Amino acid sequence: MNSLLNKLVPKEPKFFPVLKEMANVIMVTSDLMIELSQHSDHESAIQFYKKIKEQEKKGDGLLSQVFEDLNSTFITPFDREDINELANGLDDVIDYMNSCAKRIVLYNPKQLPESAMVLAKLIKEAAVSINNAIDELDVLKNHSKMIKQYCNELHAIENKADDVYEEFIITLFKTEKDSIELIKLKEVMSELEKATDAAERVAKILKTIIVKYA
Amino acid sequence: MNSLLNKLVPKEPKFFPVLKEMANVIMVTSDLMIELSQHSDHESAIQFYKKIKEQEKKGDGLLSQVFEDLNSTFITPFDREDINELANGLDDVIDYMNSCAKRIVLYNPKQLPESAMVLAKLIKEAAVSINNAIDELDVLKNHSKMIKQYCNELHAIENKADDVYEEFIITLFKTEKDSIELIKLKEVMSELEKATDAAERVAKILKTIIVKYA
Amino acid sequence: MNSLLNKLVPKEPKFFPVLKEMANVIMVTSDLMIELSQHSDHESAIQFYKKIKEQEKKGDGLLSQVFEDLNSTFITPFDREDINELANGLDDVIDYMNSCAKRIVLYNPKQLPESAMVLAKLIKEAAVSINNAIDELDVLKNHSKMIKQYCNELHAIENKADDVYEEFIITLFKTEKDSIELIKLKEVMSELEKATDAAERVAKILKTIIVKYA
Repeated sequence: MNSLLNKLVPKEPKFFPVLKEMANVIMVTSDLMIELSQHSDHESAIQFYKKIKEQEKKGDGLLSQVFEDLNSTFITPFDREDINELANGLDDVIDYMNSCAKRIVLYNPKQLPESAMVLAKLIKEAAVSINNAIDELDVLKNHSKMIKQYCNELHAIENKADDVYEEFIITLFKTEKDSIELIKLKEVMSELEKATDAAERVAKILKTIIVKYA
Repeated sequence: MNSLLNKLVPKEPKFFPVLKEMANVIMVTSDLMIELSQHSDHESAIQFYKKIKEQEKKGDGLLSQVFEDLNSTFITPFDREDINELANGLDDVIDYMNSCAKRIVLYNPKQLPESAMVLAKLIKEAAVSINNAIDELDVLKNHSKMIKQYCNELHAIENKADDVYEEFIITLFKTEKDSIELIKLKEVMSELEKATDAAERVAKILKTIIVKYA
Repeated sequence: MNSLLNKLVPKEPKFFPVLKEMANVIMVTSDLMIELSQHSDHESAIQFYKKIKEQEKKGDGLLSQVFEDLNSTFITPFDREDINELANGLDDVIDYMNSCAKRIVLYNPKQLPESAMVLAKLIKEAAVSINNAIDELDVLKNHSKMIKQYCNELHAIENKADDVYEEFIITLFKTEKDSIELIKLKEVMSELEKATDAAERVAKILKTIIVKYA
């Protein structure tokens, strides 16, 4: 088995730095998301959104770079399509955080619930697991077990996020009588929950890569 | 053509029992969904949701098992990724039913429309077609025509579900004046409709597998 | 590199006409969508929806034809799955327009915002880029640069559509006090925005095809 793995060890490991940078953008964005969730005034929200938007553009740039690199490289560490899908999956996590931040600014809800911060912190946890998994991918030598471990973490985080979102929704429908305010908060929170879903999808893509190559 | 098919006949058919079990979970869940749609008191709803949640966890377990099996098996009946995608597709059908049941419990709408039961029954029909198609997959010997037939059934069911959902939405917007109640019912019903979409996606995955191997 | 490309030049180019026809259906539907966005009376809306629905059915028929052709063809210009995914991606663009038109008819909002027309015109622009890209795909001889160019156009159009939708949402939440009317307009517009997302996804599929074969 090891000889097969050795064949797959990247001769030209140019993709790992870009994927690592994307994982890092997720980390930075999740930190900004935590801060945004703790500031309720519209001015601060706008400022944090601008910073998150910058990260989102950085993510887009990295995604394009992956594509350019795939296009100009003859040999790749593993299937081109897998790199493509992984990069898209990482980008999705960033996009949902950006989308949440955008909605906070666009809708301008009266007050964010405390569970927004709880979800933002779970996304940060997911960001750590993703960074760890991508780090292991680089060496891809008998470390598939560790990657699987990080994938399981992402699954557990997603479950926790589900519970938080669930609790939030029950309370929202019980207490919020202003239906437009209810729509605003529901959508803002839903994007955060989708970010944890997207992080779990990254786990699924990583697992598929392991299935193929490990 | 037959010689090619023979090569693809599974030497180690360990995946079919798990996929069949997943198809069976869809069947059991759709039966619970029909019952849930006929009970309007919150206590019964909670009880049926608990049972559906159990099935959803069973589905998750089977999905993990598919992944573990893929990881430990050298030869597979067909591409590992296809099995992966099919298992994920089956899991999605279960997830949307679970998500609908969850929302009924979380939102606690005053009354479910009769079309909830109609949709639940269509999901049951889809579950039967899926079970039939997965059964045929096992033998994969000149039976691609029958699988295609079941896929067409799933397409037709999805179209019917669209019509039911459409009719429901027109009536809802015409008659429901409580906007929060309207949001609740729209989302509950939308998850049911997505379950039929997911069943049709299973048909698409099956068709892709046929395209490759039959 | 060229010798590799030559090998991939279709011996049996039966798929291109069908893909081109799908691209053409997108064009025709986007024209109908522009007209629908300019007519506010319910009767006209119903008439345009019927025409769009016809196109959507035509698209479904073409998608089935692609599947049938894939099933009966031994040699294909490139991977069967790629053709499958591209055809599904094209169908999605049509589906979202159809879904928007359906909602206009089902929800019957008091008045469509002007931004509906702006988005419809952006979808038309996307339709032109898609048609151009599919035309280039046919020859697939050193023209990957032009396809990439059209993909970049689709990305830019999606960004513009995002801005238009964003602006619309801010205004909607500021000015619309009838929450049911707000839900209607938000969903109608959201489907239009998703159509531009779907067009960008077509760009991503095309890019993946280039990565593999160019």
